[in-house]
Amino acid sequence: MSKYFSERFASLKPYTPGEQPRDRQYVKLNTNESPFPPCAEALSYAAEHARSYELYSDPEAVELRQALAERYQVTPDCVMATSGSDEALDFAFVAFGSDARPALFPDITYGFYRVYANINRIPFREIPLEDDLTISLDRYAGQKAVIFLANPNAPTGIFLPPERIADLARRSPDSVIVVDEAYVDFGGESCVPLTQRYKNILVIQTFSKSRSLAGARLGFCIGCPELIRDLQTVRYSLNPYNVNSFTQALGIGMLRCEDTVRARCRTIMENRAYLTEQLKALGFSCTDSLANFVFARHLRLNGGALYQMLRDRGVLVRHFDGSRIRQYNRITVGTKEQIDCLLAAIRDIMGSL
Amino acid sequence: MSKYFSERFASLKPYTPGEQPRDRQYVKLNTNESPFPPCAEALSYAAEHARSYELYSDPEAVELRQALAERYQVTPDCVMATSGSDEALDFAFVAFGSDARPALFPDITYGFYRVYANINRIPFREIPLEDDLTISLDRYAGQKAVIFLANPNAPTGIFLPPERIADLARRSPDSVIVVDEAYVDFGGESCVPLTQRYKNILVIQTFSKSRSLAGARLGFCIGCPELIRDLQTVRYSLNPYNVNSFTQALGIGMLRCEDTVRARCRTIMENRAYLTEQLKALGFSCTDSLANFVFARHLRLNGGALYQMLRDRGVLVRHFDGSRIRQYNRITVGTKEQIDCLLAAIRDIMGSL
Repeated sequence: MSKYFSERFASLKPYTPGEQPRDRQYVKLNTNESPFPPCAEALSYAAEHARSYELYSDPEAVELRQALAERYQVTPDCVMATSGSDEALDFAFVAFGSDARPALFPDITYGFYRVYANINRIPFREIPLEDDLTISLDRYAGQKAVIFLANPNAPTGIFLPPERIADLARRSPDSVIVVDEAYVDFGGESCVPLTQRYKNILVIQTFSKSRSLAGARLGFCIGCPELIRDLQTVRYSLNPYNVNSFTQALGIGMLRCEDTVRARCRTIMENRAYLTEQLKALGFSCTDSLANFVFARHLRLNGGALYQMLRDRGVLVRHFDGSRIRQYNRITVGTKEQIDCLLAAIRDIMGSL
Repeated sequence: MSKYFSERFASLKPYTPGEQPRDRQYVKLNTNESPFPPCAEALSYAAEHARSYELYSDPEAVELRQALAERYQVTPDCVMATSGSDEALDFAFVAFGSDARPALFPDITYGFYRVYANINRIPFREIPLEDDLTISLDRYAGQKAVIFLANPNAPTGIFLPPERIADLARRSPDSVIVVDEAYVDFGGESCVPLTQRYKNILVIQTFSKSRSLAGARLGFCIGCPELIRDLQTVRYSLNPYNVNSFTQALGIGMLRCEDTVRARCRTIMENRAYLTEQLKALGFSCTDSLANFVFARHLRLNGGALYQMLRDRGVLVRHFDGSRIRQYNRITVGTKEQIDCLLAAIRDIMGSL
């Protein structure tokens, strides 16, 4: 730290992204990316329609927002595009969090919520998950807060049905409920329709998972026009040209390939069932995940040791060091071939013990 | 504003980007973009080397930082890549600004500084330019502050020689001096070499102007490793995957085309001389700009009216409403053809009065 670093952040702990090692090729099952590349038709569409790079990208993202509005059956003033869904989360913390409206989120969830609260100096409270790692919404209801719910939750993959979130919205008229649906396309059900009835529900999604654009940086949020206007005010105060020109067009391109995206999501769901079944046969227990990852612990193998032994064998998964989840590893659902590599490595580890 | 919008920002005035109108084709001289597209070799390089979009972009931007370090003769730990230079500016406000270290910048400069100070709740003071619109660094020296200096300044284009900034750094050991060199490639001289001698100078540059990548979103900063580490802490707390994968490779591609970039900058400088001379012949006075724009006022024509009359004639320039600069327009230096369109429109306006 230099002597100039703001004293406000002396104890700030940044987010730790999943590792991107360079020492060798890994079977990479640690950051929940899609195993499928973007569709060729989407890339062609973008090559034909993207604004040339020497010009600034459209700060209003008019065409992309129009395409998202059509896909999700809302009007374009209910949609804002962002540079990944992380940016949308940050903007939501800035726009709606304050001393008078602290942030609430589970103690076990996407690790960035805590970082955004800290860097934006918004008071926050982490609500413990139940013993079975589910979320009890009763603990969030009736307060004045900005509530962040990953749905499905990460890293558990456990899903809350939209009617329970609608119920929370009704019981919490002074709270904004931000539903982070990064993983909703793998068997969950979106809360987007609720945003048209509840003025305190904001949905955030990403193109990084089901739509294969993690490296293009594209996310979006959908809410009532008043919430979106607030977020636009923040965006124009931090990053008006937030979405790269080619990415704007590529997002539209991927929205034109929804049949392929749905078929790929079905494949991931089938692979998830296969992976879960095989892990259970090997002595693991898994949470009931509706995401493109499983969260698994072995009854005898230590979670951190397993992570390291898999890494030594060229398979990368994600291990978190929280006290209640230390025994688990989060494993991205990849292709059948990737899963079989993982299973072979696990069998090798178990045989060597 | 929704009833949930943070009361901290009730009076926030977002930045107003230059307009991107859709009603007709304009001769677009309002946002200081390059009139040249990215080099074909750079695009080919990126197509061949960019990581596939389904994977996250490299959060460390290792190859790009290496290429920048070579180009600017520093080590990679002196370099950080950002999503446009705006993001680097925001990170610098967050990292170094605080109640104990307020921000200082000229009253007439890049309009985003004030917005970043406001949204990050950093106290700031705007130091008036001299009557001739130059910056007197004596007014900044010897304080404990984070000082933002666009060099050349915008929208005046007036340049401060690096030795004067070195002098300020010596006289201000408790201040960080952020030199925003968005426009330095059109005849100015970079302060990058100073960052190796002064631990309180941070240089920020962009690929949006001389390197034709406004729509790709790429900026960078160079400073001593301690300052860069602080900025990396902030980046990992806000936007670890900030630079799109293709953009990382495209940046390297453009760095391989430095001869072309330099030749294009020379063309812009020649065109700037031509534009300035022609404007003067038409009764304008211009600041002494070393940027890819000129800042011009007519002795008889009202600045706002001229902006509007040019717009009606299909030529877009930028007009700012500040009391001391209301009489001016900022005109991007485009191609010779674009300049001749502008001049024809001005002659038409003068003939019609």
